[in-house]
Parts: sequence; C-alpha cells; structure tokens
Amino acid sequence: MEIKPVAVYHSPLKEKFGLPRQSGIVPALRGRVTLLPEYKSGDALRGLEDFDYIWLVWGFHLNREGSGEGRLTVRPPRLGGNQRIGVFASRSPYRPNPLGLSSVRIVSVHPEKGIIEVEGADLADGTPVYDIKPYVEYADSHRGVRSGFVDKHSWEQLELRVKDGLGDRLGENELKAVCELISQDPRPRYQNDPERIYHLKYGSFDVDFNIFGKTAEIIDIRKIR
Amino acid sequence: MEIKPVAVYHSPLKEKFGLPRQSGIVPALRGRVTLLPEYKSGDALRGLEDFDYIWLVWGFHLNREGSGEGRLTVRPPRLGGNQRIGVFASRSPYRPNPLGLSSVRIVSVHPEKGIIEVEGADLADGTPVYDIKPYVEYADSHRGVRSGFVDKHSWEQLELRVKDGLGDRLGENELKAVCELISQDPRPRYQNDPERIYHLKYGSFDVDFNIFGKTAEIIDIRKIR
Repeated sequence: MEIKPVAVYHSPLKEKFGLPRQSGIVPALRGRVTLLPEYKSGDALRGLEDFDYIWLVWGFHLNREGSGEGRLTVRPPRLGGNQRIGVFASRSPYRPNPLGLSSVRIVSVHPEKGIIEVEGADLADGTPVYDIKPYVEYADSHRGVRSGFVDKHSWEQLELRVKDGLGDRLGENELKAVCELISQDPRPRYQNDPERIYHLKYGSFDVDFNIFGKTAEIIDIRKIR
Repeated sequence: MEIKPVAVYHSPLKEKFGLPRQSGIVPALRGRVTLLPEYKSGDALRGLEDFDYIWLVWGFHLNREGSGEGRLTVRPPRLGGNQRIGVFASRSPYRPNPLGLSSVRIVSVHPEKGIIEVEGADLADGTPVYDIKPYVEYADSHRGVRSGFVDKHSWEQLELRVKDGLGDRLGENELKAVCELISQDPRPRYQNDPERIYHLKYGSFDVDFNIFGKTAEIIDIRKIR
C-alpha cells in the first residue's frame, strides 16, 4: 500500500540526539502538527477541539538508510543495548514498516490554519505524519497491564543543574523543556565521560551540558546565528 | 512511502456487517494475528509474552473502492449519521490513508508459529496488518481525558434473548462472542424494522436474529455447508 503524508511535524528538535525516547516523557516539549495544503480547508480538524489527545502515525524519516531492514530482533537501549528482543515486542524505529505511533496532548487546535499545537511528542522536526486520529479513552486506555521489559527496566532520571545566569537566555517553558530533555539522559548507551561536553540543538539555541554521575549540568546556552 | 503487510488477521467475522465498531467493545471475540512467512522464524515475537496488549496498525481492506477519497469530513454512526465532523477528529475507515489502529488483548503468543491469539479486535478476517507494537502503559494510557463526541453519544446496548435450544449449537465462548456482537446493535443507522431478519456470519455459522425495540432475539443458528 502506498501512503502519503497528510501533515508535517514541527519541533525545536531537528536531530535525533536528545529526542524523547517515547511520547509523554517530556511533557513540556511543544511542537505543532501542520496539515499539508490539500487538507487545510478548516473541515478536516472540525470537532477535534473536544478531545484532549491525538494519535499520530508517522514515519521514522531519520533512520539510517538501509540499517535494520529485514532484521527480526532489536536491542532496546532500555535493556542496555546488549539483549535482543523481537522487533514486534519493541517500539524500535528499525522495523519492517518504519511507522511510529505516539499519543500527544492537544494544547490548541486551529482548524482554519490546519494546525494542532501539541505537547509531549517524540517526533523530530520535519517528520512526515501519515494519520491523525482522536484518542478515545474507552478503546485506547488500559491500566494495570503488563508492559514487558519496559516495566522491569526503568530509566534513571538525571538531576539537573543550570549554571548561574544562563536560565534567562530561554523562555520559561523552553527552559523547562530543555531541562526535561537532558534529565532523561540522552547519551548513547554505555557512554560515560564526565569530561565530554554534549550539545543539544533546541530551536535556535545550542545548549552545552556535561554529566557527572547522576547529575547533568547545563554550562552554556548560545543563540545560533 | 510504500508499506507491506507483515501479518494477516484471522477472525470468525468475514464481512463488515456485525464487526465491532471499535476495539475492546466485544471482548469475547477471539482472533489470531499470523505473521507472513518471512517473519515467522520465532525471533520477531520474542519477549511479547510479557505484554498484555498490542497495537495493530492495519489496512481498511473492506472499504468501498474510491469512496470517501479526498473527503475531509465524515458522518460518524455514533452521531446518528447526519452530523459531519473532520476526518482527523474521527476513527472512520474513510480517511486519506486507510490505516486502522486497534489495541487488542493478548491471549497467547506462539513465536515459533508466528501466531498471536488475541481478544477484542475490530478487524475482519483477512485484514492486512502493517505493524505490531507492544502496548506500553506509561506512554499509551491516558485516563480522565476528553474524548469529544464519543463521550457525549454513547451506544445503547441491546438486551439479548436466545431462542430455546439454540445455545448449544455454539461453544460457550463463541455464543458469548455472538451475543456481545449482536447486543452492540449492528444495524445500519436509522434502520428499524422489527419484521426484518438479520444474518450474522460467524465462522462456519449463520446466526439469524431480529430486533424489537431495545431487544434482539437470536432465532436460528445454522451450520454453513
């Protein structure tokens, strides 16, 4: 089946590094779903303002070309990267059809502009969106259910420090989002070098930080020219 | 993007008539997801036995050819069929990319056979499945959220009677599934003819029933030859 994008996702995060590892874990992170011109008449989003969440079905467009194709197992970062599980028991981007699925909170709907402002998405800037569906609690929400290896291996959140005087360089919500992003520990698995300076690109800002043990410190925030 | 089926869904329901209108509303209804041969090695489902639910991303293969294409609004049966809402505020099968999304309960996983037995699906027999993902509660479950027109317009369940002596013609679970299917009122919207006999095809059985007011009665169950 041939599927075509219906929308594009816009986010302050343009690269894979720093992206939330799942939807909902960085709730302060804002972005917008923008319908393609042919869906922008104002009709396609009518009634969506009465929902709190939507599903996005989207494409993993940042996948490395050809990698993972045809593989039936993956090594989730949550398992330390050295244990293999079946691709259909994981949410890995490397899967037979590279489709992502994320529930995100609606902040506001602008039908006439074809825009949905959302929070908590794990999509990078420029991600093609193939479908938007309303989140329906009675069919989509299950509580007290077993979630396999995800239950057994939680992420440890990092403590976060911001060097004096830097906090003002970002707006309040932006600083919150940046702190939540870094506290989820965006390092590649197994990397542990306290000397290393990491760079998070957030919108028009470069955020430098390092990690000592369980604490991350933001050491610089620079506007990109 | 070109996507290819990874599995096929097998259900006792081969037609659109009688299909649950959403996943989860007919919990006794069983079916199986069967991986295509290239995914059947036993690896692709490894670890899935530790999850209670999966997501299926599937194709609405029973859509009437060409119908609904390019339309930006739909008329949900739940709204009586006479009110239009945006296609992205609905779960209608008639959408720009005819992709369905359903969370279904895992009954058992058979990795070496490439089979997942499930309950509560709203997919017809033969439906192509494009992706299988584990249901992850912390990311996928939201409670107390607004679900738009779905909250305001509930389905009325029908009372169900089974004519004496017919119950034994089906197994216990099958009878339960058939009763749940009919009690969700599978009639097309606005149809209200107490004389009419409806036929539900369930596996190798034809189930005849009629509906008076708020009560459905199963009047015959015949094995199809």
